[in-house]
Amino acid sequence: MSVWVLETQISEIRKISEKKLNISLLNTTKDRQKLLSTKEIHSVVKVESKLLKGARNYFEEQGFIEVAVPHITRATGACENIATMFQLDYFGQNGYLSQTAQLYLEVLTPFLEKVWCIGLSFRAETSADERHLTEFTLIELEFAGNFQELLEHVEGTICSMINCALKECEEELQLLNVNVERLRKIKRPFDKITYTEAVGLLTEYGVKWGDDFKSHHEKALVQMNGNQPLFVTHFPKPIKFFNMRENDENPEIVNSADLLLPLSGEAVGAAEREYRYEKLYQRLINSTMFRQLVERGGSIEDFKWYLDFYKENRPLHSGCGIGLNRVTQFVLGTNDIRATTAFPLNRESIL
Amino acid sequence: MSVWVLETQISEIRKISEKKLNISLLNTTKDRQKLLSTKEIHSVVKVESKLLKGARNYFEEQGFIEVAVPHITRATGACENIATMFQLDYFGQNGYLSQTAQLYLEVLTPFLEKVWCIGLSFRAETSADERHLTEFTLIELEFAGNFQELLEHVEGTICSMINCALKECEEELQLLNVNVERLRKIKRPFDKITYTEAVGLLTEYGVKWGDDFKSHHEKALVQMNGNQPLFVTHFPKPIKFFNMRENDENPEIVNSADLLLPLSGEAVGAAEREYRYEKLYQRLINSTMFRQLVERGGSIEDFKWYLDFYKENRPLHSGCGIGLNRVTQFVLGTNDIRATTAFPLNRESIL
Repeated sequence: MSVWVLETQISEIRKISEKKLNISLLNTTKDRQKLLSTKEIHSVVKVESKLLKGARNYFEEQGFIEVAVPHITRATGACENIATMFQLDYFGQNGYLSQTAQLYLEVLTPFLEKVWCIGLSFRAETSADERHLTEFTLIELEFAGNFQELLEHVEGTICSMINCALKECEEELQLLNVNVERLRKIKRPFDKITYTEAVGLLTEYGVKWGDDFKSHHEKALVQMNGNQPLFVTHFPKPIKFFNMRENDENPEIVNSADLLLPLSGEAVGAAEREYRYEKLYQRLINSTMFRQLVERGGSIEDFKWYLDFYKENRPLHSGCGIGLNRVTQFVLGTNDIRATTAFPLNRESIL
Repeated sequence: MSVWVLETQISEIRKISEKKLNISLLNTTKDRQKLLSTKEIHSVVKVESKLLKGARNYFEEQGFIEVAVPHITRATGACENIATMFQLDYFGQNGYLSQTAQLYLEVLTPFLEKVWCIGLSFRAETSADERHLTEFTLIELEFAGNFQELLEHVEGTICSMINCALKECEEELQLLNVNVERLRKIKRPFDKITYTEAVGLLTEYGVKWGDDFKSHHEKALVQMNGNQPLFVTHFPKPIKFFNMRENDENPEIVNSADLLLPLSGEAVGAAEREYRYEKLYQRLINSTMFRQLVERGGSIEDFKWYLDFYKENRPLHSGCGIGLNRVTQFVLGTNDIRATTAFPLNRESIL
């Protein structure tokens, strides 16, 4: 028997006896420190790091410029819901932990054209479960361009993330029992349906036009799409962020897109941004978010620096936020967001 | 006259008439939004982005793995001084905004060997001046290895940062009047003196052995070193973080190094880490930081998860934190940390 044949046999035996990892071990946050020595966490960290690298590769290739953004902010760090913002005493003023850097990237877009950041989003979510984190990594991009280009950048970033993990984490994905064929099949462009079409598909769930989708609605839509990524576009104006740009043909809807992924649901929120001062101002002061801000003792002063910026002519721009952990969920094939990172933060896991 | 000669003349005239930028325009935080349209900020953002890219390039080349770290933490997110931590109500518990991810990286080092993160450091500094920010970007690495390797990683990261900016921001550095020859001269290894030697050089300033250095002492040391980067090593144990590893020959000092840079002073804090449980525990409970924690109503419980980790045998490891804005100050040649980023955060600049 040649040495080569012997080595091949040993390798085969090793493969068979190799203990596969069990990612569901990570579906818990209580006493998280006890899991830090597991191979499951170490493999997940490596996959997560390559997803981040993949996003940065895309930004680099496309000429996007990184911006260091603030995380202690006024209410301009809010993402739709002031009620889920952590507050802190900032030298006697009210400070918030930011949920998005969108508005801070926006004001540099007219000058730098294409910008990105990978920062944190803080949410005061009381649930400690498979769907909620109080701090997570948010990948954001903003650029001078339109809706069609925006969808292409979302697709490009997501595909670059997945490809980097596939290329550089082959061993970890195998150990974690990830079906990589499912990932290799993901191709651009992603499928797209409008919000109105989606409502039509969800009538049996009792969804009516104007309702926001719940996570089981998102799951159903993705399943109907053969468990492939799905953009849902053009949501009703009242249920979306105040600066998502109104559609030119139909002022009831905005030029927005949510990307739904199997297992995790909404992983990306994307939109063209409103850039006309009067519209922005009216949309803001009539928004639910603004009512919440006033209830908490805030005022239009919080948004003054941002609104003032649009008193001058600004070009059309668009952007998105990609929730890293939602993408990681999809890549790892897990139902539980706690399994996607070493230190998932919720009310019971603070270390 | 040929077209070629004419074009050359036009280009020469353009060069001469080209208005140079004035970075000192950015030495202010009040109404920061008014500066966002200046070419000065746009150039600084580009330089900052390439410094970050340079750091990541080094980590990638050297096989370091990125880790997503938490920023709402217990007191284990503290960096020496609990008094400068922002506190927040975390579902009825006391939460802090972290100042360093060091302890969170440390506990993954025995398994992943080389890890890094680029995150945030929050400091409740009341001064709004040229030296203080309340939030800044911190580049941290941690690895299974010793002091000598640590200094090499610090040098490697800093040089990779500077080289990336030199290579990819030639135009911006020129516009900002940066003397790039000064940067091209920076070579590894950096000069090194011990803390004890440094005290000897600072006797005329009234510095005695055991004192911590003030920023004008750091400036003097760098000047004596021909305005070149300078490591000061082996500080007295009582003035350094509780887990900096005691020197084997002299238990009065620790295996630590501060990297001083011209203009900005201490830009990097680095050390071997203590990994013996009993020593760690004693050092912690006898530290000034721990006394501050207890005064604020905290207890050893905050450090339990971390201390417990060292109840098992752990290998020697070392790490550092690189303050991005301090490196940017050096690269841009500015005395003012507010000029190093688009959104410098202090008590008067919250947006």
